[in-house]
Amino acid sequence: MSLLHQPHHDGSPLYLPVEDPELGSTVPVRVRTHGTRPVARMWVRTTFDAEPTYHEMVSTGSTSGTTGSTSGTTSSTDEHGSTWWEGGLPVRNPVTHYRFLLEHPDGSQTWLTAAGEKAHDPSDTFDFRVVAYPPAPAWARDGVVYQIFPDRFARSAQAHERETPAWAVPAEWDDTVVFEGTDPRTPLQFYGGDLDGIVDHLDHLDEVGVDIVYTTPVFPGESNHRYNASTFDHVDPLLGGDEAYARLSGAVHERGWRLLGDLTSNHTGDTHEWFQQAREGGETRDWYYFHGAQSDQYETWMGHHTLPKLNHANEDLRRVMIEGPDSVVGRWLRPPYDVDGWRIDVANMTGRLGPIDVNHETARIIRTTAAEQRHDTFVVGEHNHDASGDIDGDGWHGTMNYSGFSWPVWSWLRAEQTDARAFGRPVQVPRRPGGLVRESFDEWRARYGWRATSQSWNILSSHDSARIRTIVVDPAAHRVAAGLQFTLPGVPMLFAGDEIGLEGVNGEDSRRPMPWHRRDAWDQTTLTTYGALAALRRAHVALRRGGLRWAHVDDDTLVYLREHPEETLLVAARRAPGDAITLDGLPHGHLLLSTSGDESAYDGRVPATDRPGLWIWRLDG
Amino acid sequence: MSLLHQPHHDGSPLYLPVEDPELGSTVPVRVRTHGTRPVARMWVRTTFDAEPTYHEMVSTGSTSGTTGSTSGTTSSTDEHGSTWWEGGLPVRNPVTHYRFLLEHPDGSQTWLTAAGEKAHDPSDTFDFRVVAYPPAPAWARDGVVYQIFPDRFARSAQAHERETPAWAVPAEWDDTVVFEGTDPRTPLQFYGGDLDGIVDHLDHLDEVGVDIVYTTPVFPGESNHRYNASTFDHVDPLLGGDEAYARLSGAVHERGWRLLGDLTSNHTGDTHEWFQQAREGGETRDWYYFHGAQSDQYETWMGHHTLPKLNHANEDLRRVMIEGPDSVVGRWLRPPYDVDGWRIDVANMTGRLGPIDVNHETARIIRTTAAEQRHDTFVVGEHNHDASGDIDGDGWHGTMNYSGFSWPVWSWLRAEQTDARAFGRPVQVPRRPGGLVRESFDEWRARYGWRATSQSWNILSSHDSARIRTIVVDPAAHRVAAGLQFTLPGVPMLFAGDEIGLEGVNGEDSRRPMPWHRRDAWDQTTLTTYGALAALRRAHVALRRGGLRWAHVDDDTLVYLREHPEETLLVAARRAPGDAITLDGLPHGHLLLSTSGDESAYDGRVPATDRPGLWIWRLDG
Repeated sequence: MSLLHQPHHDGSPLYLPVEDPELGSTVPVRVRTHGTRPVARMWVRTTFDAEPTYHEMVSTGSTSGTTGSTSGTTSSTDEHGSTWWEGGLPVRNPVTHYRFLLEHPDGSQTWLTAAGEKAHDPSDTFDFRVVAYPPAPAWARDGVVYQIFPDRFARSAQAHERETPAWAVPAEWDDTVVFEGTDPRTPLQFYGGDLDGIVDHLDHLDEVGVDIVYTTPVFPGESNHRYNASTFDHVDPLLGGDEAYARLSGAVHERGWRLLGDLTSNHTGDTHEWFQQAREGGETRDWYYFHGAQSDQYETWMGHHTLPKLNHANEDLRRVMIEGPDSVVGRWLRPPYDVDGWRIDVANMTGRLGPIDVNHETARIIRTTAAEQRHDTFVVGEHNHDASGDIDGDGWHGTMNYSGFSWPVWSWLRAEQTDARAFGRPVQVPRRPGGLVRESFDEWRARYGWRATSQSWNILSSHDSARIRTIVVDPAAHRVAAGLQFTLPGVPMLFAGDEIGLEGVNGEDSRRPMPWHRRDAWDQTTLTTYGALAALRRAHVALRRGGLRWAHVDDDTLVYLREHPEETLLVAARRAPGDAITLDGLPHGHLLLSTSGDESAYDGRVPATDRPGLWIWRLDG
Repeated sequence: MSLLHQPHHDGSPLYLPVEDPELGSTVPVRVRTHGTRPVARMWVRTTFDAEPTYHEMVSTGSTSGTTGSTSGTTSSTDEHGSTWWEGGLPVRNPVTHYRFLLEHPDGSQTWLTAAGEKAHDPSDTFDFRVVAYPPAPAWARDGVVYQIFPDRFARSAQAHERETPAWAVPAEWDDTVVFEGTDPRTPLQFYGGDLDGIVDHLDHLDEVGVDIVYTTPVFPGESNHRYNASTFDHVDPLLGGDEAYARLSGAVHERGWRLLGDLTSNHTGDTHEWFQQAREGGETRDWYYFHGAQSDQYETWMGHHTLPKLNHANEDLRRVMIEGPDSVVGRWLRPPYDVDGWRIDVANMTGRLGPIDVNHETARIIRTTAAEQRHDTFVVGEHNHDASGDIDGDGWHGTMNYSGFSWPVWSWLRAEQTDARAFGRPVQVPRRPGGLVRESFDEWRARYGWRATSQSWNILSSHDSARIRTIVVDPAAHRVAAGLQFTLPGVPMLFAGDEIGLEGVNGEDSRRPMPWHRRDAWDQTTLTTYGALAALRRAHVALRRGGLRWAHVDDDTLVYLREHPEETLLVAARRAPGDAITLDGLPHGHLLLSTSGDESAYDGRVPATDRPGLWIWRLDG
């Protein structure tokens, strides 16, 4: 069966028009089916208080022509053969599960879940979910994030005047990053980038098209990464201190952009004032997990004694760190810093230790504190693997979506000759065909739910991973990856330098300084592509809020629709040369962007290509 | 690829030898692979505190002969071509997730999860799970449960002397059960079975081979089902009162059997003493959910005003009902009643109401209270659909496994001509091929985890569902269903009367009185089959504790191994006539039981058959 003939629903406005449903209300839900696979009756099944109930739906009309003028509820870009079903979904729980039961004319029954149509009776695992908690603020869903690792981004004039601290191994801007094995110099190599250096280069960010600036930690710590904070009270003087942070915030906000901080909720550095006091048996002793009376035996992050783990069951720690306006979480969100939210480091492990699990409580407190400072703050949690239990509630708005975006894209576009190591795994990145990659996209989107997926970050590289360029090698494939990043559901997060083709075989190596003074080494074509993609995302609501429906998938090709009541876009990504591919039933469309130089309109065929490329068309409607 | 060549692991002792692991320990885990699909390297991946880590495994030996004498770790019934891998799994959390990463000689990578081998990167949904909480007591895992609906089971001599209460519609034992639509007589039809009636018929239970007696509620309530209790302090005098319950308990325990009660933790009747007091504004007001000051507006079970919902966030209710030795949960587990545990009614909705969810807390308290009365108590929660989030922790030991057992079996064996209505669904039971049925079995077992599945109840019928005989019509198919009930992982729970072929098109109709006086109407062949299956389960540890590995599946056939270090059994179920089916690589075996009259040994082929049948062989080893 053609992918376009499969029954479809997702959490986007075309299928679930109420984006922000109230608890206790009943919201309309819609399903598209196709005449080649007729449906006799349909029910939306929901579980309220964990009990299944069924609500019959009605068929509201079929589309007989390719331009889709039909009974009221169908969209203007509707295609031939579609039938729409509509029903009412009671939102009885803050996170309400639902799925659809389809009875076919031959008496057979299937289920439509977020993981697709199933002929057996599946568990609730992949139920659709509608969420009655407030969504992330619009800016966080519609923007483009730029991640900056301050030590490596840019040095301001003042940076050159600062003395290198005693713990550091000084580095010149062009020095090679030390990253092999467990070289003790790796966290100490100090390049001296600072916050005013970021301010100096905001025009570059504008060229890239980003509007959310996310810096890794700015609190002092005796390392170049600063994930081992020695205090949360002040910004590192090596970065320019509190005043520089206020200047950065002012400059970012002046452009109408947003600023995100990075908070290590799971641990501090062992030089942290709280830990120093704790080690000496002070009042903060129970803010950490000491083993008995000994001061050199305590829980850490992954065995690193420099990173003692915080005990979020402790009420005093909560009050100082995460709860209320004067907590660390609260106060940086207010003037003069006005930070717009937090990226939470090691969010997955925060509050979890063996039999202890106060993770959701901690996440809820952090989000509540943030929301109380300003109504439109955003909190995103780092999660190394599967955040599905943690992100559709009232905690983190979303996650850094490595599992649902980065790894599938990497495994589809991986070059044979790449030296890049896999992230967190004992093996290399595998190269996989489009079908398996689609399966990963679908499974993770289904697990996270539509809203949490669309509020999470689509990442090609980060300060913790290899660089996408090193994974795919070919610049044309890099641009396909960027195209996926901006056209699949989710918020693009660029690691500074990706846009000019920086390389790196792992997280440490990827922290190479931005070569501002060697502009000839930049991949200008890729930079232009990022800028065009960001502009297109801003201009087209279907890319920001539209649904996702697959049109065609083969080993080397991914073709999908982004559907929204206002418009429908068609995206085709090809990782290798290939013949034209004919699709059936979609209207024609005009080109919005091509990464390959091929400027074909969509005339019913995805064009043949002799190189990797990605096309975005707006369908006529 | 042959099913027998797929890599395999499950939570049974052959693959996970430590059944009761301690938190903080490292337990061995084993995977079987096959030479036709070689593996170069393997890791067990676990997530501790939600962070993935990898632990490399070693290959411990291959099997070159069919009798499996090879390096130490392989079992005696090993088959040709198997390779064993072994590794250490750190049990860091009370419920620790794990899966296996397989690297193949061609460089490709796959994952072995509880839902099978996956070529894409799946979510944690179907990870294997090892649980450090204590397991259910051995009797509850190894026994066979007999569900009795007291009003319809048997009348003792005393029963005839009791007066019919005012609320009841009296019925003679042979009267037809009223069940159509919403006839008001349905819950009031009173046949007058009592507890001494059960005592009178324990020899019958012995003939069936059961050893756990589970009665639906025995507390008074103005209905025949008694799920609307008016008190939890006394047993209904219409059943013989407290003394009769003590007599039943004594008689059951005298045989070395166990007794389970049925507790409505979600609600009481509106005639309950607590609710009467609450309605008048008394101290128990907050034990329910009244809407403001009105006494006729309150939360109920599914809109039934006779079933007001309990508020388990209330500490006083907790103390009286579920927490501590003097609570309802506690006191019936002590002398003179010595009940061995509870079946919890509407466990899925208990403690859940819109934004409120204290379900896990409530379940934990109930289980803790039960465990504190006697170390070997058992608590099983009713769940209408997906209990996966509720049963692998420290709450319910297991569930009534409708989703993972009943519906798949029904949909495989459903007769074309059945009038039976589907349970909870607006449609009839579909008829599905073996492949889809296996998919359901596997998905639910994967979601619930091995331990919770094996502690849950395999149900063919209950007081809430149609009767299996009405679903399958053909007595031979009924015996296949019974065979599945006793040979798939899980604890068989029979609804009294199933063993003699009673019928019923829905839960109400299924509550037909036991025809003690019309023994000629009994299906004696089926009764004998149940007895033989129960005896076989008692005699063979592989049926009680063994793993599950598929050997062959087609539309009409399910063939699987139950593997245990002491023995391996092969089970073949056929729903229709068919030719012999040759399997490859397994040792021969001798017949333990056949439901069809065909007495073939296993000689490498599942025998041809002209009727539905199920065979159980013990493989030579």
